[in-house]
Amino acid sequence: MTNTDFYGIYKAMCEKALEAYPFSGAPETSVKAMRYSLLAGGKRLRGVLALGGCVCAGGRAEDALPASCAVEMVHAYSLIHDDLPAMDNDTLRRGKPTNHVVFGEAQAILAGDGLLTEAFVSLSSIPDPSLAAACVCCLAEASGSAGMVGGQVMDMEKPSDAGAEWLREMERRKTGCLIRAAVELGMICAGADTDMVRRGREYGTHLGAAFQAVDDILDVTGDEKSMGKSLGKDRDENKLTAVTLFGLDEAVDMARRETALAVEALRGLGHEADFLRQTAEKMLKRVN
Amino acid sequence: MTNTDFYGIYKAMCEKALEAYPFSGAPETSVKAMRYSLLAGGKRLRGVLALGGCVCAGGRAEDALPASCAVEMVHAYSLIHDDLPAMDNDTLRRGKPTNHVVFGEAQAILAGDGLLTEAFVSLSSIPDPSLAAACVCCLAEASGSAGMVGGQVMDMEKPSDAGAEWLREMERRKTGCLIRAAVELGMICAGADTDMVRRGREYGTHLGAAFQAVDDILDVTGDEKSMGKSLGKDRDENKLTAVTLFGLDEAVDMARRETALAVEALRGLGHEADFLRQTAEKMLKRVN
Repeated sequence: MTNTDFYGIYKAMCEKALEAYPFSGAPETSVKAMRYSLLAGGKRLRGVLALGGCVCAGGRAEDALPASCAVEMVHAYSLIHDDLPAMDNDTLRRGKPTNHVVFGEAQAILAGDGLLTEAFVSLSSIPDPSLAAACVCCLAEASGSAGMVGGQVMDMEKPSDAGAEWLREMERRKTGCLIRAAVELGMICAGADTDMVRRGREYGTHLGAAFQAVDDILDVTGDEKSMGKSLGKDRDENKLTAVTLFGLDEAVDMARRETALAVEALRGLGHEADFLRQTAEKMLKRVN
Repeated sequence: MTNTDFYGIYKAMCEKALEAYPFSGAPETSVKAMRYSLLAGGKRLRGVLALGGCVCAGGRAEDALPASCAVEMVHAYSLIHDDLPAMDNDTLRRGKPTNHVVFGEAQAILAGDGLLTEAFVSLSSIPDPSLAAACVCCLAEASGSAGMVGGQVMDMEKPSDAGAEWLREMERRKTGCLIRAAVELGMICAGADTDMVRRGREYGTHLGAAFQAVDDILDVTGDEKSMGKSLGKDRDENKLTAVTLFGLDEAVDMARRETALAVEALRGLGHEADFLRQTAEKMLKRVN
């Protein structure tokens, strides 16, 4: 265990790669609209997990930069589309006007489409074609209708009798799949074997569930200033979350249990897994 | 030269593969909305070109089915998003209500996102990872901001002084890139060498330009019944097209010239290129 801030280092690596991403051949408006959302800050959890997953599986963090950028592009596109008037109709994100407020709805839809597609251009730059193809399969399955898009589809048509099972499945798809894929992509970039990738999947799946529970908790207990958004929305909007469904105490227990399961998935691995262990603990204690 | 209707055979193969496409793990609404647009008929030009490109390069048509499905998924997604109220606001396509009219705007946006992502799942099923990775690179570059999405971005922000150069560039991106990529994808699936792929690119580029010119011509000379849509829209909406910019005669000349250049790109190839040659001629004479 070391006190070096690897999260900060990986985050800076991911941020720098996104900042330098060329978007070759794209019209100026397109580049502006995509960069506006892609470079709007945030924790970069997914991009960081890709780099950390690669190191955990014995690779160098740099080797996972194309995957790190790709997963952040998919995340950024999903936020742009989720914020659209036809979806959640949000006008602010991380204290800035949302993409469609600045660029108009048409350009915002296209910025999302462009970022999603660019994620696969980014994965195409992975030199080993076998690893590139495995990454494409992993990211496409996790972010498409079987994963993230499917979660948003469920969220948009929430049935009136939606309960715990519906919630778990919706959140697994909408938030969990991409977080899980981030770890897996990093491991694939390191050329990890099947057992390592299986551990990464399990770690990522539980981390994703914990992450979502903490999000729900922070909506009640968080500080608006450090969160950078208005809170209490879940209760006001009668949203189904772990907190509104089970209460705060049970949600906190759930976040702890899922974090423990994430760490458990790495049992038997050595110091190379420390970063992923620490990240799970860090996400449990986060205040934004 | 043979009288066998290879276009019909390839179209039926593509159609059958799309019909049978599993969309594994997607929620029911998602599958319904995606299939509604994906299976709405049409010429399947892009899917057919992928199969024809594969055969031209010495492969079996079956080998290009994942690419054939992928390129049709990208085409279908682009139509769903183009039809949205924030874009062209079209309520009818091929005589059927558009996706957002039937499923609502949110689900239509997500059906598009899902189809785009699924295209890369489909390419992941290509057994040889080198060919799969090359296909991903080709399709992502052609359909993203440097290609098709970039063309729509340009179209949505048409400058008041847009002229011939702007039009050529916008159409090359918006329509040309995906048609060109379809041929190229097919050839990649056959394991084609660099020279063959270069010919495919050139053929596809000119075919795309000819195809767009014929579209513009048919808006003036076509028959509403066989076209399945209302015509004369380009003139009424003051749209910039080859016809409104250069006049009908010059547009017809342009379509002929581009078709000849497409065929020319295949010079020196044998009977295996007959299908692509015939398809270029067929697209020039089409009435819908």
